Amino acid sequence: MERLASTLRRIGSLDGEAMQAARARQNQLTKPRGALGVLEEISIKIAGITGDPRPAPGRKAVIVMAADHGVVIEGVSLYPSEVTAQMVLNFLAGGAAINVLSRHAGAAVRVVDVGVAVPVEGEGLVSRRIRPGTANMAAGPAMSREEAVAALEVGIEVAEEEIARDVALLAAGDMGIGNTTAASAISACITGLDALEVTGKGTGIDERGLERKVSVIRQALEVNRPDPSDALDVLCKVGGLEIAGMAGVMLAAAAARRPVLVDGFISAAGALAAAALHPHAPDFMLASHLSVERGHAVILDRLGLCPIIQANMRLGEGTGAAMAFFMVDASLKILAEMATFDEAGVSGPEEASPH
Amino acid sequence: MERLASTLRRIGSLDGEAMQAARARQNQLTKPRGALGVLEEISIKIAGITGDPRPAPGRKAVIVMAADHGVVIEGVSLYPSEVTAQMVLNFLAGGAAINVLSRHAGAAVRVVDVGVAVPVEGEGLVSRRIRPGTANMAAGPAMSREEAVAALEVGIEVAEEEIARDVALLAAGDMGIGNTTAASAISACITGLDALEVTGKGTGIDERGLERKVSVIRQALEVNRPDPSDALDVLCKVGGLEIAGMAGVMLAAAAARRPVLVDGFISAAGALAAAALHPHAPDFMLASHLSVERGHAVILDRLGLCPIIQANMRLGEGTGAAMAFFMVDASLKILAEMATFDEAGVSGPEEASPH
Repeated sequence: MERLASTLRRIGSLDGEAMQAARARQNQLTKPRGALGVLEEISIKIAGITGDPRPAPGRKAVIVMAADHGVVIEGVSLYPSEVTAQMVLNFLAGGAAINVLSRHAGAAVRVVDVGVAVPVEGEGLVSRRIRPGTANMAAGPAMSREEAVAALEVGIEVAEEEIARDVALLAAGDMGIGNTTAASAISACITGLDALEVTGKGTGIDERGLERKVSVIRQALEVNRPDPSDALDVLCKVGGLEIAGMAGVMLAAAAARRPVLVDGFISAAGALAAAALHPHAPDFMLASHLSVERGHAVILDRLGLCPIIQANMRLGEGTGAAMAFFMVDASLKILAEMATFDEAGVSGPEEASPH
Repeated sequence: MERLASTLRRIGSLDGEAMQAARARQNQLTKPRGALGVLEEISIKIAGITGDPRPAPGRKAVIVMAADHGVVIEGVSLYPSEVTAQMVLNFLAGGAAINVLSRHAGAAVRVVDVGVAVPVEGEGLVSRRIRPGTANMAAGPAMSREEAVAALEVGIEVAEEEIARDVALLAAGDMGIGNTTAASAISACITGLDALEVTGKGTGIDERGLERKVSVIRQALEVNRPDPSDALDVLCKVGGLEIAGMAGVMLAAAAARRPVLVDGFISAAGALAAAALHPHAPDFMLASHLSVERGHAVILDRLGLCPIIQANMRLGEGTGAAMAFFMVDASLKILAEMATFDEAGVSGPEEASPH
């Protein structure tokens, strides 16, 4: 609990002066004002996050939190729980989508077992298993409050290790069969929306499967009655160990003034929990993409985050964030490397204004 | 004319067998089917374009076509025509957004003067000036039919040179003060929509400027009465030299079975003209992003292309395409490098289907 509390205490706010300086420079670069859209905004936000008016691209890492979900017993997913452990091994072997995309982006992948049901080990795995998956939230709390805090603190700890290795840009990804169900339950609870509004087809269930999933989520909320104003209560009753872990990664990034990429819907649920734990947490987040899971747009809107990529992705693992790494570095290079109107001898728009 | 005709004759259609093989492999990779969305679709389309069921990433180049527009005299842009030449020099010096982003993406930038008003020269410039900018289309044809063909053939020629250098992925970018006006006129004419539906604020004019721009476009269409079914007639009467050049790049790519990225609205107007010249041309195109220019979405919809990035960009130059280079390579690496369910020992969805 102390690690979480001290992390929350260290979270500040954006550096307005650095942002103003970055914006002023963006406006002097040889392009119409605002013409690079989101790319300009990212660089300005990162100036505010880091306090550096011209931040340089640096090392990148995606932290993939893996855990299982007892609620899978209710038939909410197409895949069996064993796939979580199998995919963890796939991550360690370098054969999963997140490996391919992170190699392409020049980012490290850190895989963390925060609660995989089946015992799993392998070179490179960060083993921090708090319990072998959550309990079935449709029948009672997914975990205890202490376990939720422990999962958050695993995320904080791993993120702090990456930051100590001079990682400048973090991302939080997930693996966990059944975790769209937990993400939807968290979203419904914190936003106050009906489960239907924030529940999608996950790995690919059909319409009947979706109905069942929505009713399982409603039941979980009914049985547990999590307090929407208490993020720890929400996380322990209807959350997931990896979702809490991702929230921890985001809080640690905020505390260390490092930008952190939110990946897909599960990662966004972690972001929502992080924002409920500290209102300034979203100031340090960037939304990488908009997935097809309907709850994702709801959360990003709630957090005031604008996704960079819209590519119908719905895989998780951090794959959307891996794609966005390139965009973030691009935005920083634009700010740092482009010529100004003066430097390039290009006429600005004022000279052409009709009078 | 012969170069254009022979290019059009060489354009074939997508290789269905290669696409089927690529799709079959995508479905065996360790992820739910379709979970990588557009990334999967890109790799499958490129398999069809190249005829290779597992195409490897290769060299990349963006061809930036620069030219001026006589219609600027009508006050349709915030910037004076001289900026076109100034920006060409900025491209050659490496200080523009397209330089920064192409370096980041590992792509070459080829700058072509196909009709800049002010004489411009510099190391690396491909000088193929057909005329010093178009004539004012609000008063008469922008250029002659022969000049439009010559501009198309410049695009074809430069693209063929890049292809001869083993460039595997092309992009067509633009520079030309006033060219959103020409792009809107082309779009209105070919789609049959009113100018208002396909006209935006370009480099940043205000509401009154937009009204003026729309009325100038209506006047140009009224004065010239281009034949919507004759792409060359449209290009010469209300087009631009760089737009015709970009259409040429896209046709050459199609003829050589190389994927070509459409950039923003101007590039899309070139794509629309290319599609009017050969109905299979869009089969070889990929849409990089969706700009804020309202005509852009209209054209992509018409061409059946789905943009990868939605980042409120509206700069042109090929900057959206430069961002998309990374995505395209990512899609090819996913197809080539990811482990299959069998290879990774991961259970597929069938085993979990409820019976």
